[in-house]
Amino acid sequence: MSNIIDQVADKVLEIVSGLKETPKGAFNIRVNGKGVKKSSSKNIQIVSKKDKEGIDIIVAPGTKGETVHIPVVLDHSGTQELVYNDFYIGEGSDVLIVAGCGIHNDGSHLTQHDGIHSFYLDENASVKYVEKHYGEGTGDGKNVLNPITNVHLKKGAFMELETVQIEGVDSTDRETNATLAEDSKLVVKEKLLTNGKQEAITRFNVDLDGENSSANVMSRSVAKGDSKQYFYSVINGNNKCAGHSECDAIIMDNGFVKAVPDVTANHVDASLIHEAAIGKIAGEQLIKLESLGLSEEEAEARIVEGFLR
Amino acid sequence: MSNIIDQVADKVLEIVSGLKETPKGAFNIRVNGKGVKKSSSKNIQIVSKKDKEGIDIIVAPGTKGETVHIPVVLDHSGTQELVYNDFYIGEGSDVLIVAGCGIHNDGSHLTQHDGIHSFYLDENASVKYVEKHYGEGTGDGKNVLNPITNVHLKKGAFMELETVQIEGVDSTDRETNATLAEDSKLVVKEKLLTNGKQEAITRFNVDLDGENSSANVMSRSVAKGDSKQYFYSVINGNNKCAGHSECDAIIMDNGFVKAVPDVTANHVDASLIHEAAIGKIAGEQLIKLESLGLSEEEAEARIVEGFLR
Repeated sequence: MSNIIDQVADKVLEIVSGLKETPKGAFNIRVNGKGVKKSSSKNIQIVSKKDKEGIDIIVAPGTKGETVHIPVVLDHSGTQELVYNDFYIGEGSDVLIVAGCGIHNDGSHLTQHDGIHSFYLDENASVKYVEKHYGEGTGDGKNVLNPITNVHLKKGAFMELETVQIEGVDSTDRETNATLAEDSKLVVKEKLLTNGKQEAITRFNVDLDGENSSANVMSRSVAKGDSKQYFYSVINGNNKCAGHSECDAIIMDNGFVKAVPDVTANHVDASLIHEAAIGKIAGEQLIKLESLGLSEEEAEARIVEGFLR
Repeated sequence: MSNIIDQVADKVLEIVSGLKETPKGAFNIRVNGKGVKKSSSKNIQIVSKKDKEGIDIIVAPGTKGETVHIPVVLDHSGTQELVYNDFYIGEGSDVLIVAGCGIHNDGSHLTQHDGIHSFYLDENASVKYVEKHYGEGTGDGKNVLNPITNVHLKKGAFMELETVQIEGVDSTDRETNATLAEDSKLVVKEKLLTNGKQEAITRFNVDLDGENSSANVMSRSVAKGDSKQYFYSVINGNNKCAGHSECDAIIMDNGFVKAVPDVTANHVDASLIHEAAIGKIAGEQLIKLESLGLSEEEAEARIVEGFLR
């Protein structure tokens, strides 16, 4: 197998985007502050911005079943970047977009990627967006990721966001803002694990503006070590709509979790539900697995793995 | 039946405290900014404060099955008062305290009662505290009630707060702060109905400081007309503890409801759950009652009545 970039970058690239080779179709691979490989396809244009860092991803109306890969790798300690990516998803199209950012930091410098992603989904467009965040490296430089995701759903549009942060990110403040027109739907699945001194802030702001719009925000997280997690989820029901927000958190060691949902009904036909549960792994679950021969640590690891799967 | 105060005040008194005659045992009846009738009992002292408006209620250790009535009536439009009541509940006692404030406002002046109630429950003391708020009158003067309730629970203490606001209060901002020592327990049941241009703010701040402390905060509310409700509930789990917060709201007409729970686990053995649901009365419920011969209005009224019972 030939290298996509080089050995270190390729490993990180595979972890955050699943890529083992240069992908087919539309993609943009960004390494250490520069786009290094880029390709458009017949239906999906990727155009570098002229006025600032970032790209426009333009999906033609009716495009179905295609995938866009836009991974980012930082392996020079000290790289800090702010990138703007705008996604224009044409009417009636249905695409998978795989983003993700991995940092390999062997140095002592703050290494940081802040991505501002704006999605404009035209009528009846459908997007599944997967974003993985990952850090590694032997240095003591911090790995920081602060993404902002703006979602604009027109009539009948559907978007599913799947965000995963499993390891190695010292600090993250992730903000997702969404406005939904009539009959549109947003599904968010967040999975988060923090450890050591890591801090993670999650902010969702969802405006259910259109009739029959709906949002389902689900967060599952594990706070280990001395890590801290803050979960803020604002859902405003401004029309006949359905909103659901759910935050399940497991705390271990000296983990800290704060959950502050905020649901507001501005319309008599808004139906809003929030649920949050914070606690440690139930004793019975551990005992059951230990009775099958697992050590306490193995049992805990197994339960966490299942919870975040 | 002889009057307690006079005809108008007696009617309001009965609504907020259930009293039809001067009660037996310990009581303090406050009318238009002054204590007008007061009685201590063998085990329960009621002492007027010297330095400010209000009373100290001192329950002797081991007092069981006694009731304290401390209702407040305002029927002079324009009366505004700030009252401090402190409750010292002796070790191992078990008492019922019935408070409540009713305003009869036939005038055009703001009429306002702000009560600051502080409860100090000694070890294994138990209190049920019932507080009813009510307003009426033909004037256009506003009826305002802003109570602050501070609860301090020592080891093994138990307190149940039942607060009810059904009618006629134009504006209310109710704050309840509680700190819980080991093995103590707090139960809060709030029932709230707003209508017209009324506004109601509820704030709960609960610190679960002691091992095996627990809190269960339940709010049921109905927002009719153009009324607005804000529900803020903060529960901090600072030890091995269990916290549960639940907010169920029905919206009707142009009602507005905002619910912002805030649960924080500062301890690995803290178990915290929050649930909130906001929506209108389910269609099936209405149809079922309408099929039994009720009009839509009657069916709605029946459902609201059951929900707030």
